Amino acid sequence: MGLAGQKIGIAGAGQVGAGWAIVFARAGAAVKIYDGSADTVAGMTAFFENSLAAMARHGLIEDAAAIMARLTIVETLADAVADADYIQESVFERLDVKIDIARQISAAMQPKAICGSSTSGFPGSAFTADLPNASRFLVAHPVNPPHLIPVVEIVPAPATDPAVVAAVRALMAAAGQSPVVLAREIDGFILNRLQGALLDEAWKLFEEGYASAADIDATVAQGLGLRWSFMGPFETIDLNAPEGIDDYCARLAPMYQRLAALRDRDAQIWPEPVVARAAAERRAALPAADLPARRAWRDERLMALMAHKAGQSD
Amino acid sequence: MGLAGQKIGIAGAGQVGAGWAIVFARAGAAVKIYDGSADTVAGMTAFFENSLAAMARHGLIEDAAAIMARLTIVETLADAVADADYIQESVFERLDVKIDIARQISAAMQPKAICGSSTSGFPGSAFTADLPNASRFLVAHPVNPPHLIPVVEIVPAPATDPAVVAAVRALMAAAGQSPVVLAREIDGFILNRLQGALLDEAWKLFEEGYASAADIDATVAQGLGLRWSFMGPFETIDLNAPEGIDDYCARLAPMYQRLAALRDRDAQIWPEPVVARAAAERRAALPAADLPARRAWRDERLMALMAHKAGQSD
Repeated sequence: MGLAGQKIGIAGAGQVGAGWAIVFARAGAAVKIYDGSADTVAGMTAFFENSLAAMARHGLIEDAAAIMARLTIVETLADAVADADYIQESVFERLDVKIDIARQISAAMQPKAICGSSTSGFPGSAFTADLPNASRFLVAHPVNPPHLIPVVEIVPAPATDPAVVAAVRALMAAAGQSPVVLAREIDGFILNRLQGALLDEAWKLFEEGYASAADIDATVAQGLGLRWSFMGPFETIDLNAPEGIDDYCARLAPMYQRLAALRDRDAQIWPEPVVARAAAERRAALPAADLPARRAWRDERLMALMAHKAGQSD
Repeated sequence: MGLAGQKIGIAGAGQVGAGWAIVFARAGAAVKIYDGSADTVAGMTAFFENSLAAMARHGLIEDAAAIMARLTIVETLADAVADADYIQESVFERLDVKIDIARQISAAMQPKAICGSSTSGFPGSAFTADLPNASRFLVAHPVNPPHLIPVVEIVPAPATDPAVVAAVRALMAAAGQSPVVLAREIDGFILNRLQGALLDEAWKLFEEGYASAADIDATVAQGLGLRWSFMGPFETIDLNAPEGIDDYCARLAPMYQRLAALRDRDAQIWPEPVVARAAAERRAALPAADLPARRAWRDERLMALMAHKAGQSD
């Protein structure tokens, strides 16, 4: 397996950190997991068992017991970090918390170890720039849950050693994830910037009454999102004109330029009354009490989709 | 089957129109197909046979021969239109061509028939407003190929009878498509506006060198696009916060507002040198000679995805 013989430390094991633990153990690494919350620790074994059982049911893993045997919950941060080759930090998303844990990891880790942060909200430099070994730190941002969604955004801080970036890209690929590398820090990274751009437009169409939230959703789930589940937006347009992407742009850039010019630049982004109207539509379609069951459905669909994708050629 | 006993006329049968013919015949309708190009007509039977064979191989249809038997190529537009309950127009995307065919269909169709146009570039009113039976015309915009991608954007012109909108929504649902209804005309409808918003942001990230086109593509195909292949953007965020979509917005609207505020409003949209750089990257990854094979791969993936989705619960 890709990470056999490697030692991984997990610092912070809520949903994201616990998902990361599964990612690394699935690939054969020995994983030590630390979380400061007794409640989180109390639920962790059940989370691992339930997640692995569901993954096995979908054919995504073969030997749940062997993966479980590579997951060890430890009692101190130092226990998780001290002998780790790589540390994934996924603590609460608040800058003072990130600064504090980064200092502790920095002091406890081996000189050659690397630490990636799951932060989605902060540039890594905001909590690692002052560390003596800042060159060993970067952002490795997953989508939740990381054991079901492969993309990882690797974002170096200015102080990060380029060799560390390359090493984390290789580690994530060996773990079966899909690493993407940003050249430098940017707010929202790639994924949330793309999601935000589409959501901003969806909200405006909804606000102006062009369509219901349900019909905007169907436009994506029964149309736009189908190809994007196996190829990205650039490859999509590359295949959509006889001579490729530049041919596509020669034909259709004027349309997209016209649509962009029509966008209301002074529109309020995500105004509250509009959100309230969308919430009312959603709660009529799905009562709040049914949200947990629908989330379980989503995760089943994701696992089935990943099993489907594993059987297809790229 | 959903459309058994119904008569459908296809006006213009390039890739889009021929795909539409399969959609309606698959649902049990008797379909008459007219195209003014001898070349197009010459290739049509082979297109039907190849498409139906591929769909049967993926388990998307059972009886290709029965569907084939419901497809009749006719020699004049009047032959296709005269006894049709519904006419799907998919001629070349140029306004004078659209105006001319709409006039001919208007004159040849039954009083109670309805005509939908596949146009993606024009509001229906631009070529139907002056017709004596303008209330029977609207836009029914598919994604290519319509027999593999279910979404249909139904867009009434100001003159369109609301009962006609409801009838086309019902017809498309009975045909197994996923109709979405716009309240009124808007440039780009929903799908291309959403696609354009995401593409604009993707181009900017690429232009500014944050990531390669391949890594931006992977961010979508291995992350953002996975959930969007079975649920839309609103349902996605509705499930992503404990109390639903308004809870999500209370937590994350500030982040999206910040990202939107950071966008360069004066940036040139899709500048040519940037397109040339993306084209160079794409052609290094996929030589132009391999584009047709990659399109065939895409269509196989789409069929496999649709077969996968058909086996899942909604």
